Amino acid sequence: MALLDTIDSPADLKRLPVSRLPQVAEELRRVIIQTCSTNGGHLAPSLGVVELTIALHRVFSTPEDKIVWDVGHQAYAHKLLTGRRDRFSTLRKLDGISGFPKRDESPHDAFEVGHASTSISAATGLAAARDLAGRRNKVLAVIGDGSMTGGMAYEAMNHAGHMNRDMIVILNDNEMSIAENVGALSNFLTRTGSSEFVYRFKKNVESFLGRKDTVGKNLLHLAKKLEDSFKGFFTPGMLFEAFGFEYIGPIDGHDLPMLLETLEKVKKYHDAVLIHVLTKKGKGYKPAEDDPSLFHGVGPFDLESGRVLKGKGGAASYTAIFGSALCKLAADDERVVAITAAMPDGTGLIPFSRQFPKRFFDVGIAEQHAVTFAAGLATQGFRPVFTVYSSFLQRAYDLVFHDVCLQNLPVIFALDRAGVVGNDGPTHHGSLDISLLRHLPNMTVMAPRDENELQHMLATALGMQGPVALRYPRGNGVGVALDQIITPLPVGRAEVLREGKDGAVLALGSMVHPALEAALQLERDGGPSLAVVNARFVKPLDEELIQFLARTYGRLITLEENALQGGFGSAVLELLEEKGIRGTRVLRLGYPDAQIPQGDQGVLRAMLGLDPAGLASSMEAFLRRD
Amino acid sequence: MALLDTIDSPADLKRLPVSRLPQVAEELRRVIIQTCSTNGGHLAPSLGVVELTIALHRVFSTPEDKIVWDVGHQAYAHKLLTGRRDRFSTLRKLDGISGFPKRDESPHDAFEVGHASTSISAATGLAAARDLAGRRNKVLAVIGDGSMTGGMAYEAMNHAGHMNRDMIVILNDNEMSIAENVGALSNFLTRTGSSEFVYRFKKNVESFLGRKDTVGKNLLHLAKKLEDSFKGFFTPGMLFEAFGFEYIGPIDGHDLPMLLETLEKVKKYHDAVLIHVLTKKGKGYKPAEDDPSLFHGVGPFDLESGRVLKGKGGAASYTAIFGSALCKLAADDERVVAITAAMPDGTGLIPFSRQFPKRFFDVGIAEQHAVTFAAGLATQGFRPVFTVYSSFLQRAYDLVFHDVCLQNLPVIFALDRAGVVGNDGPTHHGSLDISLLRHLPNMTVMAPRDENELQHMLATALGMQGPVALRYPRGNGVGVALDQIITPLPVGRAEVLREGKDGAVLALGSMVHPALEAALQLERDGGPSLAVVNARFVKPLDEELIQFLARTYGRLITLEENALQGGFGSAVLELLEEKGIRGTRVLRLGYPDAQIPQGDQGVLRAMLGLDPAGLASSMEAFLRRD
Repeated sequence: MALLDTIDSPADLKRLPVSRLPQVAEELRRVIIQTCSTNGGHLAPSLGVVELTIALHRVFSTPEDKIVWDVGHQAYAHKLLTGRRDRFSTLRKLDGISGFPKRDESPHDAFEVGHASTSISAATGLAAARDLAGRRNKVLAVIGDGSMTGGMAYEAMNHAGHMNRDMIVILNDNEMSIAENVGALSNFLTRTGSSEFVYRFKKNVESFLGRKDTVGKNLLHLAKKLEDSFKGFFTPGMLFEAFGFEYIGPIDGHDLPMLLETLEKVKKYHDAVLIHVLTKKGKGYKPAEDDPSLFHGVGPFDLESGRVLKGKGGAASYTAIFGSALCKLAADDERVVAITAAMPDGTGLIPFSRQFPKRFFDVGIAEQHAVTFAAGLATQGFRPVFTVYSSFLQRAYDLVFHDVCLQNLPVIFALDRAGVVGNDGPTHHGSLDISLLRHLPNMTVMAPRDENELQHMLATALGMQGPVALRYPRGNGVGVALDQIITPLPVGRAEVLREGKDGAVLALGSMVHPALEAALQLERDGGPSLAVVNARFVKPLDEELIQFLARTYGRLITLEENALQGGFGSAVLELLEEKGIRGTRVLRLGYPDAQIPQGDQGVLRAMLGLDPAGLASSMEAFLRRD
Repeated sequence: MALLDTIDSPADLKRLPVSRLPQVAEELRRVIIQTCSTNGGHLAPSLGVVELTIALHRVFSTPEDKIVWDVGHQAYAHKLLTGRRDRFSTLRKLDGISGFPKRDESPHDAFEVGHASTSISAATGLAAARDLAGRRNKVLAVIGDGSMTGGMAYEAMNHAGHMNRDMIVILNDNEMSIAENVGALSNFLTRTGSSEFVYRFKKNVESFLGRKDTVGKNLLHLAKKLEDSFKGFFTPGMLFEAFGFEYIGPIDGHDLPMLLETLEKVKKYHDAVLIHVLTKKGKGYKPAEDDPSLFHGVGPFDLESGRVLKGKGGAASYTAIFGSALCKLAADDERVVAITAAMPDGTGLIPFSRQFPKRFFDVGIAEQHAVTFAAGLATQGFRPVFTVYSSFLQRAYDLVFHDVCLQNLPVIFALDRAGVVGNDGPTHHGSLDISLLRHLPNMTVMAPRDENELQHMLATALGMQGPVALRYPRGNGVGVALDQIITPLPVGRAEVLREGKDGAVLALGSMVHPALEAALQLERDGGPSLAVVNARFVKPLDEELIQFLARTYGRLITLEENALQGGFGSAVLELLEEKGIRGTRVLRLGYPDAQIPQGDQGVLRAMLGLDPAGLASSMEAFLRRD
């Protein structure tokens, strides 16, 4: 890493002759590939923007100039060039370098990200702040074509274009977001674009035609007629110019001289400008170029072959089990349709999309639209299943309320990645969905104890007449056998798994098996004897059973992988209050009221005291206190 | 109402000769104006689409054909033409006709609405359902140019245009949403558009150029060059064609023959089509035409003069007090900037916008962008105040979490219309914000007992270093005197207003004064004696005081205008559990887990048992039970 080792800040990069930059690119790629091969990470997106990142840091000067990376999983080269080379090996580990920009990690990270489509909004805020403060720095947003399918990008362009602030949006077009890109926009962007001369040419024509009150009038009329006649042949720029942005591009995002020249030129403008850059996801690493979807966010892999290393092996993932259960149930029920917001792979819908292509809808990174689209289908008798990561459903909260719950429509929210997700960290943990959905009228919320129950819960959900949220964790199932016949469970009924003498544990979803282990361990060690209940339903609660347990034991322990504020445990407290049950001591275990860091799932659970050992110790302390 | 009285369904409308339709329009306007003059309502939007509504019901056949009205406040004529004439006098009253489409009110209401920008998504769902079911009905979305500033409209267009389903979007362009429209889009739409012949002309050119592999190639090249040269002169259609929609328009939305001709023509297409219709808000009622913003959603007014009738008079509104407090504080603090999502009037920002035009931002109906834009400003040392109706902040939940709370940025959410809002009903009640915001890390949540405290809470919020939500109700203040000097309150400290012997009431925000009244009434009637506390903070709670009260009285009553699931009362339950305080009986009063209907605020509060009499009776029963 001869060259990279000399770069401790963008200033060092600026000192190099242009001729050495390709070597910097080469070395950046090597570090990124190596680090991802051991730590996992967002390899393909980061490889795609290596040249772009070099060019940006060469032309602009962070931290005075501000770069907002949309989603932020493409910012590895940016991190390596801004003083984090030495710690880069800790990428995505507990207390290590984040996989996303972090303001407390570096002043070069202007804004934090993780979810899609926020960058233009943030950049607009940064530009407005600059102008209010009378500063002159540049503000840039780097946004992928995938993120451009998210609605708030348009909200931001509408506002930014209207104000016409000095800001630069770089559309990083890899014709592919996480999975294959979808949508009209994608077709549109792939049409042959114009080149940079058009910008100047148009300016000339405009200034000439600007005199339209006088001589320009007829010419304007002619121009309009001509334009109308040929308006079927758009250039991508037209969309952005409609929002008041100057458009430049498309340009080759791996052509460093072209990037440098374009950015230098644009740096002199003082309007809202969009530069359309074409890049290749996974660029420079053959396996990632060949399968950018697999290498979008990838676990550890073999450097030579690109073969992804197996996890601890064993059980299939919740995601995979969900996908095949959905196919099974859909085969017998034509009402079932599946919807994903650009995550067919991550949410296990690939088999469904192949088996039932007409009943499968990938709507782009557009969770809001997905929910209301599902509601529309549900009014007509269909049973839409929207499979979505827990943290990404947050984007559509209002639509879950407004379009699904108020109309009491049978839309199923299959919430994958509920609970801590691991190395993606705070923006991606599914730590809030129970608190978020439990207060919505007509909503049912459930969580299976294992992958076998997941199947039955999906059948339960499909049998219901209103909205249902079904949450399950990231990662491998518990490894239990799968029933071949899938049958609905009784709604609002919990399951007693273990009797006890000193108290009862109400465990939800992923906490059921750890609770059993903890109870067993306590008993083995001569500690208290605890009943363990698989709660199954957060809403409706099994009111009778919980009241019975409260009266019988006087001590309840609730366990959940969710924020303690307004979560499952709070639902139990509310029930006891409503029923006027006093004197029952309750211990609620779950996530604290704080940002949960990145780290391996197991490490995080242990840190939060939610592994069997931690649970056992909390339970014992609670019971001993009495 | 000679003609209207003969129309009990769209079929009756279809039987009339075209020459009589202007009279139908005239009569519809008269009923709408009269009803709104007594009941209040969304007068201007509904008057603007009278001809359009007649044309739609003349050409299409609901309920087989589906019309989705975006927001839905423009659907009064639709209601009058679809069998609800007789009950229309109950508009917006308890148990009366809703001010928005309701599926259980009529099969002609295909989808329920209330919040903006959902219609194209819903219509896409209805179209997909039709195609899956092999039906042939038409699906239409009617969306205003204001709603077009909301991002999810683009998410939907991207998906719908990609699938190219048979569907029709009618862009109802009145160059004004609720307030004056903002944004680049608005400028764009007002450019002179093309007329209908362009559609045919372009089709011809396209079919000729379709042979581009052979002879068309050079022609295509020429066309592109020409287009590039003149692309500064867009027609509005280009934006929508970029998303794969055919564009037709703009046409005069008050020209019935033109509307009928266009809709008949478009009915024969089987692609995704957008018709751009120009209408005038308030059309046909001079006062509303002159001040469409005032008559957007208006209270009862004098029919002759158009003068809005005063309410019960007296106190200024929370909204107005907030607006002037903000101006006062901003005069001394240059960091303060104000943001609204198309509601400068409704949220009291007009004075601020005049006094500090550079620090005022109206971003369009774009709550998501508003939040992240605010976050961007906050990173640079500004103190953005996003004033927004409680129910509309729901649209931006993910951004509150992702961009504000995770980064712990000092953005202030001024939540107007928290609690029941009255006649706008379920979609507009601010019934969830506490449950929604309380679990977010770093968030402070507070609610003032009256308009005077509102001022001090705003100062408190501006003095804090992280995100703050400040909620206050719709309508007049309590009528207390306003302190001239505005000073911050101690964070996380409640205020004891009244001593008592038998229990303590923890009242939040708008419940404080009713709680005092109820306690006084109970005492007068020889009932229990209750301490009353103004809770002020939902987060952080006044932990010490609450523990002291729990230990002292053993009986706590929590009052809030919010859902009981995960609300303020649940926060108190959680605290008692965390502190291991047992044996305290708690009664939580607030909103039930159900849709709250429309009706006057006072009527709804009484119905929910949250007026002083209802509170007194619940409190007494609770204490007697012991």
